[in-house]
Amino acid sequence: MKILVINAGSSSLKYQLIDMQDESVLAKGNCERIGVDGLITHSAGDKKIEKNMPFPTHKEAFMAVVEMLTSGEGKVIDNVQEISAVGHRVLHGSEKYKVSTVVTDQVIDDILSFKELGPLHNPPQAIAMRACQEVFGKEMPMVAVFDTSFHQSMPRKAYMFGIPYEYYEKYSIRRYGFHGTSHRYVTARYGKIKGGLEGTKIITCHLGNGSSIAAVKDGKVVDTTMGFTPLDGFIMGTRSGGIDPSVVTYLMNKEGFTPDEMSDLLNKKSGFLGLSGVSSDCRDLRQAANSGNDRAKMTLEIVVYQIKKFIGSYIAAMNGVDAVIFTGGIGENDDVFRAEVCREMEALGLSFDEEKNKAASRQDAKFSAEGSKVEAWVIPTNEELMIARDTLELIEK
Amino acid sequence: MKILVINAGSSSLKYQLIDMQDESVLAKGNCERIGVDGLITHSAGDKKIEKNMPFPTHKEAFMAVVEMLTSGEGKVIDNVQEISAVGHRVLHGSEKYKVSTVVTDQVIDDILSFKELGPLHNPPQAIAMRACQEVFGKEMPMVAVFDTSFHQSMPRKAYMFGIPYEYYEKYSIRRYGFHGTSHRYVTARYGKIKGGLEGTKIITCHLGNGSSIAAVKDGKVVDTTMGFTPLDGFIMGTRSGGIDPSVVTYLMNKEGFTPDEMSDLLNKKSGFLGLSGVSSDCRDLRQAANSGNDRAKMTLEIVVYQIKKFIGSYIAAMNGVDAVIFTGGIGENDDVFRAEVCREMEALGLSFDEEKNKAASRQDAKFSAEGSKVEAWVIPTNEELMIARDTLELIEK
Repeated sequence: MKILVINAGSSSLKYQLIDMQDESVLAKGNCERIGVDGLITHSAGDKKIEKNMPFPTHKEAFMAVVEMLTSGEGKVIDNVQEISAVGHRVLHGSEKYKVSTVVTDQVIDDILSFKELGPLHNPPQAIAMRACQEVFGKEMPMVAVFDTSFHQSMPRKAYMFGIPYEYYEKYSIRRYGFHGTSHRYVTARYGKIKGGLEGTKIITCHLGNGSSIAAVKDGKVVDTTMGFTPLDGFIMGTRSGGIDPSVVTYLMNKEGFTPDEMSDLLNKKSGFLGLSGVSSDCRDLRQAANSGNDRAKMTLEIVVYQIKKFIGSYIAAMNGVDAVIFTGGIGENDDVFRAEVCREMEALGLSFDEEKNKAASRQDAKFSAEGSKVEAWVIPTNEELMIARDTLELIEK
Repeated sequence: MKILVINAGSSSLKYQLIDMQDESVLAKGNCERIGVDGLITHSAGDKKIEKNMPFPTHKEAFMAVVEMLTSGEGKVIDNVQEISAVGHRVLHGSEKYKVSTVVTDQVIDDILSFKELGPLHNPPQAIAMRACQEVFGKEMPMVAVFDTSFHQSMPRKAYMFGIPYEYYEKYSIRRYGFHGTSHRYVTARYGKIKGGLEGTKIITCHLGNGSSIAAVKDGKVVDTTMGFTPLDGFIMGTRSGGIDPSVVTYLMNKEGFTPDEMSDLLNKKSGFLGLSGVSSDCRDLRQAANSGNDRAKMTLEIVVYQIKKFIGSYIAAMNGVDAVIFTGGIGENDDVFRAEVCREMEALGLSFDEEKNKAASRQDAKFSAEGSKVEAWVIPTNEELMIARDTLELIEK
């Protein structure tokens, strides 16, 4: 059985075709510049195809995906009938979608109605679903997998902000958390390795360009760093993470920023980029820091320090932790970063092995020291596979 | 030697006259409604006096203080010559004042120049200093004790926010921390009990209507919860504490709030008051919660949970902790609150004794359980005494 996984953005459409027999990726690619001009990059095995073609809307992008999958050099299936279902990544499921869901017209309407909560993602994702129906036909089973779902188990003491209660009622302002599919994948993988999640306390650190950490008890999220939007938590590529909220109003007063301009500054010009003045990419920061750039060094110190503090806070939240798990672009690949986070954490029961850590990247690997009370792990994430698994499970029901 | 301690607000002037021989309070009081009409309440021993009198400015309030101290029922000294010096509480010392300082014209000018950082407090405090000079004469030694000084030892990884660096340079936007005099008093007291601060790691929790927590290593602050302003950290009486910064811009867009209106909402209508809809006072919340008010119960759960998380994060920041110390109105007096914070913290090495905790209020008392790796303490704060001590020390130099 083959599942097509779709991750749509406002002007892009990423896809993977996964054979669920062995969970292997048959082909994957990305349609870019939708609504502008159009470029598709497709890879299947060792074949790589890049082609300019017009994508006025997501519909044409879907047609190109079908063409790539079924014909030419990158062909992996004979026809679309071989695709059993389509799994869609959706950013925001609000409080309604606590689990992945078979897509109906009502579901698409709901996803659109949450556009206030996920303005950049929910509308194109709903549009992609409709485009997908047009190309594949309404009979094609589709499943929506929400970034927020896994975090819906948080207790209210973790998800309520300290503002007047009426704004929770009026605008649904609360902590939602994101990267849920990644945290869930990693949690499930850890459970598989350990033979179950019952009684476990883990902290999953998804560290990439966007980053979040989750505290997961018995396989259920009890807290996470991202909040109402993905801005909250610790500093990221271009996001500020949590700051004194008075800084927001102060800067707006001083600079005459509108709320949208201020939001833009906090989301796109802050974090690694804004602090260092060098780059939003952690690898560039490391290089600059190694070359003596003091602000790059400072930026790395800050992100590591903030992550350490969240780990400590989640150990307090769960009254303990069995394992700290690293995933995402930085978490999986950057052993220096992992070492900095895990260093001087002995008081919390965590010590790590330098050599094991160096060897741990890009695979499921424990790198805590022999005798460390808390385990440290690398578990590479795979959100697409998680979406495919959910899709399979739901269509088999 | 007698020291007069002054804590001026925009329309108030609190005072204490302290005899430094035995650090006893000879008299204390408050001038209220300065600039409106005027009311002084004065107490000396078991004498309590309340009197309406016009306070057009802080100068008249100082004159009333002198009158109360030197004549009538509340008299404790024969004349102002018995007062050796005046110690002034000042909210904000920016990055310049890392310790308490003898007041000069330059110091007063500086305090005024930091008005952007402490708009509600710094200007009246500078005005009070000038009024004090007018009433007592310029030869009266005065010392400024800043709420921010004790936190100036924070490393930059703790005090920098994740916004573009230029705003740190342009507007001095960073974490300053407040309640420094209280955290310092409690730290010094702990050091006295333990015979020194070298090698110690403590977490001081000043919990009152305004609240903050500090991580203190070797007697020096390494991190604290309040930030650029006292808004940051966890929920307080009417303050939101830290929230996803995107909530600020979102609400402003939705409700059409100006930055000042939004700031007002976060500082004065949020926290206990905004979440519970009941009161900004913790005792009222407890009562309402006990009577079945669910939002009051939730609010208490949230503040306790947020404090637990900060304690955990500071244990990570210091890689350990020897003692968690409670002070301030709630911290000193509310054993139920302390119990809730300290419960289920065994994984962090902290367990407490229910009976010792109940008996610990309003005195220096250890209430951790026998064998607890981390000690739990109540140490009542005394900011006025700390100001008096600084004043004495500086004028004796």
